[in-house]
Formats: sequence, C-alpha cells, structure tokens
Amino acid sequence: MSELVLGLDVGGTSTRALLADVEGRRLGEGRSGGGNPTSRGRKAAADNVYDAVHQALGSHEPKRVAAAVMGIAGVLALPEDTQETLFTPVWERAGLECGVDLVGDSVVAFSAGSPSPDGTVVIAGTGAVAIKVADYRMAKRSDGYGWFLGDRGSGIWLAREAVYAALRFADGTGAGGPLVESVTAALVDAGPRDVDTLIHRAMTGEPVGLSRLAPLVTAAAEVGDPIALDIAGRAAAELLSTVSAVRDTVETPIVLAGSLATADNAVSRGLRDGLARRFPAAPVRLGLDGAAGAAWLAARQLITDEPRLRRLHRRLLSD
Amino acid sequence: MSELVLGLDVGGTSTRALLADVEGRRLGEGRSGGGNPTSRGRKAAADNVYDAVHQALGSHEPKRVAAAVMGIAGVLALPEDTQETLFTPVWERAGLECGVDLVGDSVVAFSAGSPSPDGTVVIAGTGAVAIKVADYRMAKRSDGYGWFLGDRGSGIWLAREAVYAALRFADGTGAGGPLVESVTAALVDAGPRDVDTLIHRAMTGEPVGLSRLAPLVTAAAEVGDPIALDIAGRAAAELLSTVSAVRDTVETPIVLAGSLATADNAVSRGLRDGLARRFPAAPVRLGLDGAAGAAWLAARQLITDEPRLRRLHRRLLSD
Repeated sequence: MSELVLGLDVGGTSTRALLADVEGRRLGEGRSGGGNPTSRGRKAAADNVYDAVHQALGSHEPKRVAAAVMGIAGVLALPEDTQETLFTPVWERAGLECGVDLVGDSVVAFSAGSPSPDGTVVIAGTGAVAIKVADYRMAKRSDGYGWFLGDRGSGIWLAREAVYAALRFADGTGAGGPLVESVTAALVDAGPRDVDTLIHRAMTGEPVGLSRLAPLVTAAAEVGDPIALDIAGRAAAELLSTVSAVRDTVETPIVLAGSLATADNAVSRGLRDGLARRFPAAPVRLGLDGAAGAAWLAARQLITDEPRLRRLHRRLLSD
Repeated sequence: MSELVLGLDVGGTSTRALLADVEGRRLGEGRSGGGNPTSRGRKAAADNVYDAVHQALGSHEPKRVAAAVMGIAGVLALPEDTQETLFTPVWERAGLECGVDLVGDSVVAFSAGSPSPDGTVVIAGTGAVAIKVADYRMAKRSDGYGWFLGDRGSGIWLAREAVYAALRFADGTGAGGPLVESVTAALVDAGPRDVDTLIHRAMTGEPVGLSRLAPLVTAAAEVGDPIALDIAGRAAAELLSTVSAVRDTVETPIVLAGSLATADNAVSRGLRDGLARRFPAAPVRLGLDGAAGAAWLAARQLITDEPRLRRLHRRLLSD
C-alpha cells in the first residue's frame, strides 16, 4: 500500500484536515473548530486539531501517514515549544508516527493555488493581507494590520465604507440607492433611521462584526448601484496596492484566497483586472482548499520528481 | 452700568465661559472640566458649568447679566428637560436671573468666526465635522461619525494613516522617513520595532487615543517628508469633501474651527487652498473662541442694531 499524506489548514475559527495518497486520491476529510492556540487557547486548539485529524484518518491506519504539513496563522509568533508540547502530543494521541511541519497559513493558501515554490498570495476575507512566498516559505508580508489600522480592501473595510455612505444619506449630504437602503435596513430594523441611531447600531459589539455587511456591497454592485461600484473599485485598488507592495518579480504566479477574493464579485473582478494590467505575465489562480495545499506540501517531502509533483497538484486541487 | 452677557462653550473635556459687556469689554473668564451631561454625567456636568460661570462672574453682580448663550455638543440629542432640571438650578446657584439659550457647539464656533447668520463651519480636531448654519442654528451636518466610521481628515484619521505608514516600513513594503521614524519611536520606546509589536502598541487603549500622534504628521510635513505631505494632502481633500457636502450657497462665510483646522499646518493650508478654488467668493475665517461667539450670540438678544452688532463682534473676537 502506498504512503499517505496529511494536510491541515488551522485557522482561528475552523480547522480543516485532508488525508490523501501520493497518487492524489482524497481518502478522508476532517473539519472542526479553531485550532490556533493564540486565539483559542492551548486546550481547545489541541482538541480541535485532534478532532479534524481523527475525522480525516477515518479507518485508515495512522502509521501509513508518511508526512504531514500544518498551515497556521502567525506561525512565527507561536511560542518555540508549541510543536513539541502542543501538537506532538496530539500526533501521538492520533497514532501518527510521522512528524508535522508547521508553515504559515498563507503558504498553504498559496500552494492550494499553485505548485510553484515562489509567487504571491493575497488573502481577502474579513481581513486582507498579501504574502510573498519564496521556496515554499513566507518571505514578505504587507497589510494584515487589523480592522482599525489596515486590512484595506477587506470585508471590514467594505462594510465601513458602506456604513459611511448610509450615514451621508441619513444626514442629507449623500445619495441613496440599493446599498444605502440595504445597509440602513440591516442596522435599523424599525424606528428612526437618523445618524445617531445608525452610528449607535454600527458601533454595538466588536467593530470587526461589521464585516457581516460586506456582502451587501458586492450584491448592490451587481445591480449597478454607483455607490457600491465605487466602493468595490476602491477596495480592488487597495488590494492591488497591497499585492504590488510584496512583488519584486513579474512572472511568478499570483494566488487569490479568502472569501472576498475568490468569489465572483465586483471586488475580485476589479482586482483581477488590475493584476492583469500590472503583471500581464503572471498566471492568476484561486487557492480554495488550504488543507489540500498542505497535503501537497507534505507529499513534496516524499517525492522529488517535479513532473510527478505537478500531476499530483492537479489531481489534489483541480476540483 | 451697562448690561452684561455671558457666553459658554461646553465640551466633553472642557468648559469655557466669558463675561462681557455690550460694548465688547471682556470682564471675566472661566475654565473647567467637561460640562456635557451625555459624556460626563449630570452631576459632574452641573458642577463644571457652575465652576466656569462662577470664575467668569468674579466680583461682578450676577443680576447684571441680561442674556446668556451656551453652546453644547449634541444639543438636539439631550433629554428635553436638561435645561429645566440641570442648567436652570446651576443658574440659580450662581445668582443669575436671566435664562440661558442652548445652541449647538458648532453654532458658537461659527459665530466665533463670523457675525453672519448663515454659512458653514468645519471643526477639525480629534474628530471632524462640517455644519451648515442658517439663521444662527444648525441646519445640516456631515461627518462627525466618530473615529471608526468617519471623522475623515481629523486628528485620529491622520494618526491612523501615520501608523499604517510605519507598519508598511516595518514589514519592508513601504518607505521610511521622518514621519515613520517619529511614529515608530512614539509607539515603541525600546525593543523590537516589528509589525506585531507596533500593532499591539497602537491598539492598546482606546483607538481615539491614537490622535496624540497627529502632530507628528503635521511636524513631518513641515520638513518636507513626502509620506507626511501625502497624508496631509489627503486629509485636506477629505475635509474639503465634508465641507462641500453641506454647502448649497457659494458666498456665505466659511469658518474653520478646531485645533487641526485653525493651526498653521499642511492640512489647514491644503484645506484653505481647496476652499479658495471651490468657493472663491466665500470669506474664510477662524473660529477660535467659542465662549466669545456665545457671548456675542447672547448680545444679539439685547441689541437689534446690525452695525453695532458687527462692531461688537470685532471687539469681542478680534484678538
């Protein structure tokens, strides 16, 4: 029986695991809650990573797994003993005998979109960050500074612009339209739609929670709302600026990841148009399945034949 | 002996009072802590307003005060009985026999810069707001939406842009210079100046506290730092947009108020240049002394002769 590989994509809110063989057959998948010890605490992180691994293994013999890679946010900021004292015990509990290689979550997102060792990945969802990848490692980063200082062009950024437009309409100094209507209705279900009420509702709870309003921008852009189209265009320009800041080559692949950049919407189309103009020689790909990207990186520890690795990438990540 | 007037400028962090006679002589001044019941609570607000009034009155006979005006933020949002249950008792305690007229703080800022009944005032300090004044009342407002949703071009906005520039330099994707150096040093007194440390320091405490960094932007712009000049230019454009949103006439005065707009710096110069281009027929004035603006508004209740009111305005507000 052939060797197996295990890939993990560990985030703050979810953990995904994929078991595959080196021919590219997907043998098992696992999904659980956040596995990042920084945001979830060590105990919950360990339990969630174990659950995802356990589900992915299913009835397969753990000893057959010959290599594993885990993508995790903020890998460089984790305490030095994290692998030894947190994840090694999880591995042993799951019956795994191989080690696990920790890399940045951006690296597995990049590898989910391209088998190249070098390139750029932009991850735009609630937040926004661009990473230069060199030799399968994170080499440079721009933005990802969080909801107040940065994350320009992200979901939270879109939401803030949308609320600003609603406030301008509410105080009589800006135009209305589908976006203003949907944002106002989302903030105020009944009663007066004045500026003070809108501000109060928008600022109740964590500011990052406002990103729930981002889909209202992309939806209004689809029906041609000029305010939404303007916001989406500026978001795309911000993301393009962030990507450009980490690129010093022109031909390596660019991978788009995260819910905002990978969906078909005015922001992602604007970003693709901008990338095509600025980096016409660069292939642009989607990185949708970080766990599969991690599994492929694990397979690289077992296989040195480049054409075979490229075929494996297509099989693992083409669907 | 002539009648006296009392003007108050009541803010969230300070209260100022001015006692004057109707010839424009300044007879007494008072200064105390915040007097806004919304932000300070009713007891502290009443005590602080009393202190400022008491200082301004000095040894003058309270019964001689024939009219008083108080400018206060959010006047329309105050509970209806605020005057009756909060400020009338303060008046009685101070021995005053006249009533007090409550108006928006923006109206006294406008009247501090111009005796016109109509015009526009832009207040840019920690926050940023523009108000259309009509017949000495607030008629329309734009921005003032707070540190997260708006206040575009304000001190907090400048500070956020400055921290963003420092972060871009720290992760190797942006240029350095005097602003980046001063912002970084202000956030990290010793130790590593990496992105995570800078974000952590910038996000410690209330985000609005970041506005302490705004003077670093205007200082770096004075020495020609291109990053600071770019930020200042964009702040001026944001403020110009906010002002333009509330102006539907072209010839009424524009009053600049607040520490950012009234100082001589790259933001205020950029704003003045923009106003001169967009509203060439509008006089632009500074509104520095809200308490004096309020005192002049009080005098309007006693004097109907317009030339005399204009002379009084010059005397009260020319220094």
